[in-house]
Amino acid sequence: MEGRNAVLEAFRSGKTIDKLFLLDGCKDGPLLTIKREAGKQGTLISYVDRERLDQMSQTKKHQGVIAFVAAYHYAELEEIIESAKKKEEPLFLFLLDNIEDPHNLGAIIRTANLCGAHGVVIPKRRAVGLTATVAKASAGAINYTPVAKVTNLSRTIEDLKKEGMWFVCADMDGELMYRLDLKGPIGLVIGNEGEGVGKLVKERCDFTAAIPVKGEIDSLNASVAAGVLAYEIVRQRGGF
Amino acid sequence: MEGRNAVLEAFRSGKTIDKLFLLDGCKDGPLLTIKREAGKQGTLISYVDRERLDQMSQTKKHQGVIAFVAAYHYAELEEIIESAKKKEEPLFLFLLDNIEDPHNLGAIIRTANLCGAHGVVIPKRRAVGLTATVAKASAGAINYTPVAKVTNLSRTIEDLKKEGMWFVCADMDGELMYRLDLKGPIGLVIGNEGEGVGKLVKERCDFTAAIPVKGEIDSLNASVAAGVLAYEIVRQRGGF
Repeated sequence: MEGRNAVLEAFRSGKTIDKLFLLDGCKDGPLLTIKREAGKQGTLISYVDRERLDQMSQTKKHQGVIAFVAAYHYAELEEIIESAKKKEEPLFLFLLDNIEDPHNLGAIIRTANLCGAHGVVIPKRRAVGLTATVAKASAGAINYTPVAKVTNLSRTIEDLKKEGMWFVCADMDGELMYRLDLKGPIGLVIGNEGEGVGKLVKERCDFTAAIPVKGEIDSLNASVAAGVLAYEIVRQRGGF
Repeated sequence: MEGRNAVLEAFRSGKTIDKLFLLDGCKDGPLLTIKREAGKQGTLISYVDRERLDQMSQTKKHQGVIAFVAAYHYAELEEIIESAKKKEEPLFLFLLDNIEDPHNLGAIIRTANLCGAHGVVIPKRRAVGLTATVAKASAGAINYTPVAKVTNLSRTIEDLKKEGMWFVCADMDGELMYRLDLKGPIGLVIGNEGEGVGKLVKERCDFTAAIPVKGEIDSLNASVAAGVLAYEIVRQRGGF
C-alpha cells in the first residue's frame, strides 16, 4: 500500500500493518501523523532513502510512505487463552522464534490447526507475517487457528509461565523427546530456520526436547520438526 | 539442455535425463538415435510441436530436442536394498506417490536422512525429479540419502513385498498410527499433495495409517505428514 492517504486510512480503519517504510528525514504533517498511528499500533518502522522507496514502489506515487498490510487478521494472545479456557482444554500454543520462510509459517499454522493447538504466537520483528503466501501454504488453517503477534517472545513466555504454562523448545542438544513429560498446558517453541531458537528464548524454556536423529545432516526442516514435536505432545496427551 | 549433439552426449556420458521433449513427427537420423538412447534408459519422452519447443528454448537453437538433465544422480533400488543389508538393519524406505512440489521433496529427503531411512523411491512419471531446488530444500541430504526412480510404484511395492517388506500408506481413513505395528522392514508411502495416495498403490499397501487430527482443515502438508509418520516408525523401532 502506497501514499499518505491510503496508509493513514488503513491505520484508522484498524488494518494491521506488518511493516512501514518511511522516507528518512521527512518531517511534514501527514508523515508525522502516520508515524504517530504506527506508534500506537506498535508497527515496525524502517527509515529508508528515496532511491529505496522508488525501487519498492509499484505505483511510483509513494509520497514517502509504503506500508505492507497483513493479508489476514491477527488475534490477541488473550483471546487465544480465553478460547482454550472455554473449551476446558489445557492450553497448547506454538511459539515461533523468527520463522522467516512463508511456506514454513503456513505449514506450521496448518499443523497447529490439525494437532489441536489453540493458537500460534509470532514476534513482531524479523519474522514473516501473515502474507498471501502464508495463507496459501496454510491450506485454509489461517481462517481457523488464531495467530498473535508479540513484541518480545521471551517476555511473553515469562508472563505465560506465571499462568502455569510449561515451555519446551526444540534443539538437538536437549533431552530425547520421549523422555519428557509434555502433558499439561504447554507452549512449543520452534526456532529460526538457520539459527534455531534464540539464546534468550531458550533460557526461558523449561525443557529442551531433542528429536532422535541418525543421518549425516544437521536438522529437520523447521515445519517438519514442529510437526514431529507437536505430534509427540499429541501422543502423550492422548495416552498412547 | 538443448540441441542434438549436447543431448546425445549427455546420454552417452551416463547423465540422467529426467524428461525429453522431441519435435513431433521428426524422423531424421540424429533424433532417432536420441530416441533409441532414451529408450535404453527408460527416459520419458514427450512429443511436442515446434511452437512449444520454441517457447521452452532458452538458446533458440534446440534443433528439435530439449532435455531436462537431473541435477543429481539417481541410485538403483538394488543398491539401496544392499546398503541396508550391509548395515544389518531392517530396510526402511520412503516411497513418494507423485510428490510435485520440489520443497516438499527436498524436505522429505532431509527427513529420510535424519530418521535413518535407507533411501527414497519416486516414480518416473509426473513427480518432480532431483532438481537444484530439491537439492537446496534437502539441506544437503541429497548427497547422503539415495533416491531411486521406478517406472511403476505399485509394481515395485509388489516386488519388495516378496522380499518380506511391509508397506504402510498415510491416509485419514486408516487405523490410528499408534495402533499399528510399524517395526520390521517397512516402506512408508506418502501421497501426492492434492490427491493423496493413488488407488492402485493404496491397494498394494498392507496398512493405512492415520495421523490423529482435531482441526477444521483436511490434512497436513505432505512433508510434515511424512515426518510425523516416519517418527512414529522411529519411536516404535526404538522401543519408546
